[in-house]
Amino acid sequence: MDNYLLALDFGGTKLSAAVLPVSELQQDSPTWLAHERVFSPQDGDARFDIEAMIRLGKRLLGGKRPLSVGVSFGGPVDYLSRIVRLSHHVPGWENVPLQKLLEVEFSSPVRVDNDANIAALGEWRFGAGRGIDSLFYVTVSTGVGGGWVLNGSSWRGHEGMAGEIGHTVVDPDGPVCLCGKRGCVERLASGPYMAQDFMALSGSIDADITGKMVAELAAQGDEYARKILLRGARALGIGLGNAANLINPQRFVLGGGVTKSGELWWQKVRHAAEQTALPEVRFDIVPAVFADDAPLWGAVALMEGLKDEG
Amino acid sequence: MDNYLLALDFGGTKLSAAVLPVSELQQDSPTWLAHERVFSPQDGDARFDIEAMIRLGKRLLGGKRPLSVGVSFGGPVDYLSRIVRLSHHVPGWENVPLQKLLEVEFSSPVRVDNDANIAALGEWRFGAGRGIDSLFYVTVSTGVGGGWVLNGSSWRGHEGMAGEIGHTVVDPDGPVCLCGKRGCVERLASGPYMAQDFMALSGSIDADITGKMVAELAAQGDEYARKILLRGARALGIGLGNAANLINPQRFVLGGGVTKSGELWWQKVRHAAEQTALPEVRFDIVPAVFADDAPLWGAVALMEGLKDEG
Repeated sequence: MDNYLLALDFGGTKLSAAVLPVSELQQDSPTWLAHERVFSPQDGDARFDIEAMIRLGKRLLGGKRPLSVGVSFGGPVDYLSRIVRLSHHVPGWENVPLQKLLEVEFSSPVRVDNDANIAALGEWRFGAGRGIDSLFYVTVSTGVGGGWVLNGSSWRGHEGMAGEIGHTVVDPDGPVCLCGKRGCVERLASGPYMAQDFMALSGSIDADITGKMVAELAAQGDEYARKILLRGARALGIGLGNAANLINPQRFVLGGGVTKSGELWWQKVRHAAEQTALPEVRFDIVPAVFADDAPLWGAVALMEGLKDEG
Repeated sequence: MDNYLLALDFGGTKLSAAVLPVSELQQDSPTWLAHERVFSPQDGDARFDIEAMIRLGKRLLGGKRPLSVGVSFGGPVDYLSRIVRLSHHVPGWENVPLQKLLEVEFSSPVRVDNDANIAALGEWRFGAGRGIDSLFYVTVSTGVGGGWVLNGSSWRGHEGMAGEIGHTVVDPDGPVCLCGKRGCVERLASGPYMAQDFMALSGSIDADITGKMVAELAAQGDEYARKILLRGARALGIGLGNAANLINPQRFVLGGGVTKSGELWWQKVRHAAEQTALPEVRFDIVPAVFADDAPLWGAVALMEGLKDEG
């Protein structure tokens, strides 16, 4: 008789769940026994999402009790006190004791962490970081944030705030970020800010311009788009090089929409990172393997870590 | 009958050794049984230093066999292969298997690490970092470098290069550093560079000006000195704030000559670090407790970690 792991992902606009037989962990490419994704209603709240997720999980389990439950949450989580701090997308998530609620429902140990830490763990265990001793996963998208795996486990920091590369300063005289500082990596390298700066620079009045479109225009040779895209790539590269000098991880794994910006972008990121790091500080920078399923695979990796916590 | 730990410090210009009874580790302020420091000859080499250190250690031990030997080395050490890579001050240290040599001499397990990691460990165990879960120790002196303690042990990085905050970039358009980059923390905040920049700014032709003198002049109200000192403090603070956003350590401990620059300097460092870190990223910044003896106490802490390595 096999045992089963239940992976859950509260993603802001979507709820996903999947069941993995423990025996699949021996496989090179483990396969879900069941897997489903539903949309979260736009006018929903935390309570609604939790109830919908419990129904979804139980349906996929089909009466089986899971060995454990791993949960990815798209917002700040207090890992030690097992509490969700808040959601930027869905109301009612302030200080929800999600772990306790789910432990009662599933009669199994539950672990919850935020999506950046979870994605880092998932890439390390099943994706672009297999066999690596230390990595920094960075998502470059609407925001820029990351998660560390050091010595084979998540490094969350003293109060769970580690990984905020998006708000490291790489140009103290640069443009002002929403956080109040100047020249943060996120201010220069995130999709929405690149779109905004492209509009200002080019004089475009198309309010629908996105980071993706800036990358496409740059690939077509648009001078302004190229300038903005490469400035963002350089800022990110300096941030990665600084992180390399500070922590000397073996690998950086980059995910998120902006990483689809093409070879020009990747070259500039790698070049700036290598220029910033000392010559003895070596690393590689690779694309993430997972997209939508990253949180679920990371939740599985989080459950595997349970035995080490005793 | 007590057991004894032997702590050794190869410091570039000085050799230090001390013997600690294991029972002293229970004390709040452990006291050396024996402790001595000798100057290393200016025309010496690695072989001479090693032989002098072995004689010194054996004399302090007085015929006792140490339980273990902990060694601080003032230069890059490959911790995993137990080899000293090189010394910037003394010839002949390239790839010396220091651990093996000392294990034969003392018939005891030996651990060697570089002085930044060792000082971090010493401050964490016996000094300004007692009871703290994670800290970054930074020495601000001729150079700027640091060492991490995460979860109660040294974090050295994938290839032992972690802690190089001095070569993180905080101003990509700043002055050129010896490492080739612009606006490194070390280029702006180290003693010799502050002295050099003060001379250039003030038009002084006194070639003996030091970082310490710049701090003294700033305290006396000299406008140029104040500008250079505060620029250095700001660069260091941005570097610390960036490190806080990335790793979220509980505390920063600062040592080295430049930290004696007075309240003006400390205020600016703390202010810039707090401005750079996100509001949720909290930490404190405190002076190191140890000065000359830091490496010896760190070497003791390194020996305590031996049992965890199995």
